[in-house]
Amino acid sequence: MSYSAPLLIAAKRDGQELSDDAITWLLESYDRGDVAEEQMSAMLMAIVFRGLELRELTSWTNAMIDSGERLDLRNLSRPTVDKHSTGGVGDKISLILAPLVAACGAAVPQLSGRGLGHTGGTLDKLESIPGWRASLTNEEIYHQLDSVGAVICAAGSELAPIDRRLYALRDVTGTVESIPLISSSIMSKKIAEGTGALVLDVKVGRGAFLKDRDSSLRLARTMVDLGTSHGVRTVAQLTNMDEPLGRCVGNALEVDESVEVLRGGGPRDVRDLTVALATIMLELVGLSDDPAARLDDGSAYALYRDMIIAQGGDPDAPLARAAHRDTRVAPRAGGVPSIDAYRVGVAAWRQGAGRARKEDPVSAGAGVEVLVRRGERVEIGQPLFVLHADDEVHLRAGHDEIRGALTIGDEPVDEAPLLFERVDASN
Amino acid sequence: MSYSAPLLIAAKRDGQELSDDAITWLLESYDRGDVAEEQMSAMLMAIVFRGLELRELTSWTNAMIDSGERLDLRNLSRPTVDKHSTGGVGDKISLILAPLVAACGAAVPQLSGRGLGHTGGTLDKLESIPGWRASLTNEEIYHQLDSVGAVICAAGSELAPIDRRLYALRDVTGTVESIPLISSSIMSKKIAEGTGALVLDVKVGRGAFLKDRDSSLRLARTMVDLGTSHGVRTVAQLTNMDEPLGRCVGNALEVDESVEVLRGGGPRDVRDLTVALATIMLELVGLSDDPAARLDDGSAYALYRDMIIAQGGDPDAPLARAAHRDTRVAPRAGGVPSIDAYRVGVAAWRQGAGRARKEDPVSAGAGVEVLVRRGERVEIGQPLFVLHADDEVHLRAGHDEIRGALTIGDEPVDEAPLLFERVDASN
Repeated sequence: MSYSAPLLIAAKRDGQELSDDAITWLLESYDRGDVAEEQMSAMLMAIVFRGLELRELTSWTNAMIDSGERLDLRNLSRPTVDKHSTGGVGDKISLILAPLVAACGAAVPQLSGRGLGHTGGTLDKLESIPGWRASLTNEEIYHQLDSVGAVICAAGSELAPIDRRLYALRDVTGTVESIPLISSSIMSKKIAEGTGALVLDVKVGRGAFLKDRDSSLRLARTMVDLGTSHGVRTVAQLTNMDEPLGRCVGNALEVDESVEVLRGGGPRDVRDLTVALATIMLELVGLSDDPAARLDDGSAYALYRDMIIAQGGDPDAPLARAAHRDTRVAPRAGGVPSIDAYRVGVAAWRQGAGRARKEDPVSAGAGVEVLVRRGERVEIGQPLFVLHADDEVHLRAGHDEIRGALTIGDEPVDEAPLLFERVDASN
Repeated sequence: MSYSAPLLIAAKRDGQELSDDAITWLLESYDRGDVAEEQMSAMLMAIVFRGLELRELTSWTNAMIDSGERLDLRNLSRPTVDKHSTGGVGDKISLILAPLVAACGAAVPQLSGRGLGHTGGTLDKLESIPGWRASLTNEEIYHQLDSVGAVICAAGSELAPIDRRLYALRDVTGTVESIPLISSSIMSKKIAEGTGALVLDVKVGRGAFLKDRDSSLRLARTMVDLGTSHGVRTVAQLTNMDEPLGRCVGNALEVDESVEVLRGGGPRDVRDLTVALATIMLELVGLSDDPAARLDDGSAYALYRDMIIAQGGDPDAPLARAAHRDTRVAPRAGGVPSIDAYRVGVAAWRQGAGRARKEDPVSAGAGVEVLVRRGERVEIGQPLFVLHADDEVHLRAGHDEIRGALTIGDEPVDEAPLLFERVDASN
């Protein structure tokens, strides 16, 4: 069956639903080069305004998956479960969660991307470990899941490859901000990686991509429905991203903090969120182990070491440290009503921890340590932040953002909740 | 000043107004190739949804005009006034109106396009006259306006040349149907041609591009405001396009009918609409001649002959006739409640009078004669239509449309009004 791209674009523009066949034709034709970039960008903008019904979105995502290969993990001896975060500041949860859930008996195939903008990427963080490599073959992934139980590696270029072109097109045409398009981009890769179950950590707040609860809930509902319609048991957990997670923001800094948590210590919010997400992941695959105990008894840390070693890394090697540091202190005494995660994320990014374009390198040592928490009281001269950068220029690049990230007030404030709504599959 | 195309697209997507500088930058950058086709198509789709305020649309149209040259007709001894029709079936009014208004003392610089789809093009009609040529240099246009007073010719490729690229892009990206984009496409060329005044014949109904009064009124208001903001005295007249205009639809057939009207005869609706539009055109340039008298005394016809001869045409040469004809008769007696202009237009188009793509040739002789009018009573066996085509295949191509164009009923119907609202410049 053949369709006309201008007529399909006009149909979506006018609010009509597109048939499954029409969507498949559109994406296959785009993949082949028979539908032009300017036609796809007009369609994407029409979708920004009109959305996609679940049926349309399922077909759209199917066509994205069918543009590449799909891993088959069904013959593993353990059930598979993965986690995806929509991105936050100081969000090192994956580094702890993957070995922790594997230590509890599941297999965790975490195929990840790199960081862009003010949120860090899991691969960038792990690459601060000497020797560790992100690129694995499908055979290596399968073997490591079988022997170790957890793998965190780069999503190969053959998983939903059309997403690369669509994402690059959306990036230059003002069509990134669309819940169905975000959902299909995330879920096509997660479904193609072959996981049987998936927990989505949908961040809400200043440091998140989506700042408001309503949009986050709609994104969560769309992704859960999409995963479910593709046979992946999917749950979303909305979590608070107003404040940075934990104390450290930056690649090597976050690896160190993750190891603290894996050894039973570390900041309470990082540990609590990791345990909460691990509990849902285990529930989804029918395992009843106690993740907090696996942090405390050293088994999660042992599995983390195995995972790093399996990918060539040396878990005992010292990590890169930035040559330049600057400690910012409180100019007055008072309470801390909030710490702006977005501004802390931008500061760490500008200091070299993140990248503006996907070709840019990142600094392993750069970042920000956040020494106080929301709700605490500080005294005049008390250290608030330590900035880390490889040179003076980068060190100064984060100053203005950090200055605006924290104001000292007189009113006491309550602690903010860490978890918001959980979104389960409908019916 | 430099802008970011993705940010401008996102701003329009989110309903923000764009600054004049931003719009100028966007169109100049597109013209230079620095804004890509896929970015412009996403912007066009955002405009389909969000529209453009008059200020934005004025800047947009200015930038289109500035992409090419602008004729200067201010030194002519006569005031200039033009007419543009949004396109109808059997709409041969320009062929009569240009010489008629010139015979009344104005200069009429009618720079036209070709027909596409079910509505015919003025140039296609005139090209059925042996020897007549549509392409004139600017010097020839100026000289003919000075000596004859009327010119109907092809709009040169240097009038708002960016419109060609934008129109081609809109055509393949489902972004044709936008009142601001239609308005800027029409008005950029009319303003660039240098006319001092302009009457817009905005067609409404089955045979028109816009079927409903509300959309037509919005288009009329937008174009009148746009012309006025560029210093062109502009009035729009909404006219009825439910039924075909006159008896003939097709290139040479319409030239013959135009000559009948120019000689004081012809179908009443064609004569009435021509006189009504001529009256507004003369009013706009402060002339008080009586156009009906100029049809009846032969002076409009004499000027038509001069105009055709000045462009190499022979007004006395016999016109092409289609080799194949088919007369459709009434299957029963009764009243004619309506004749569907759209279906008659599609029939003539399929029989060869129109083109589907702009490269296609058209047949001079093909078309449809409509032998009855809405509101008439017909007897069984009375001829209703004569189809004309160059071969049997094309002759049959119009049958189905013609069959559905007229149903015979029992109820008497009133005649429909020819003119609807007139839209003048605000304040």
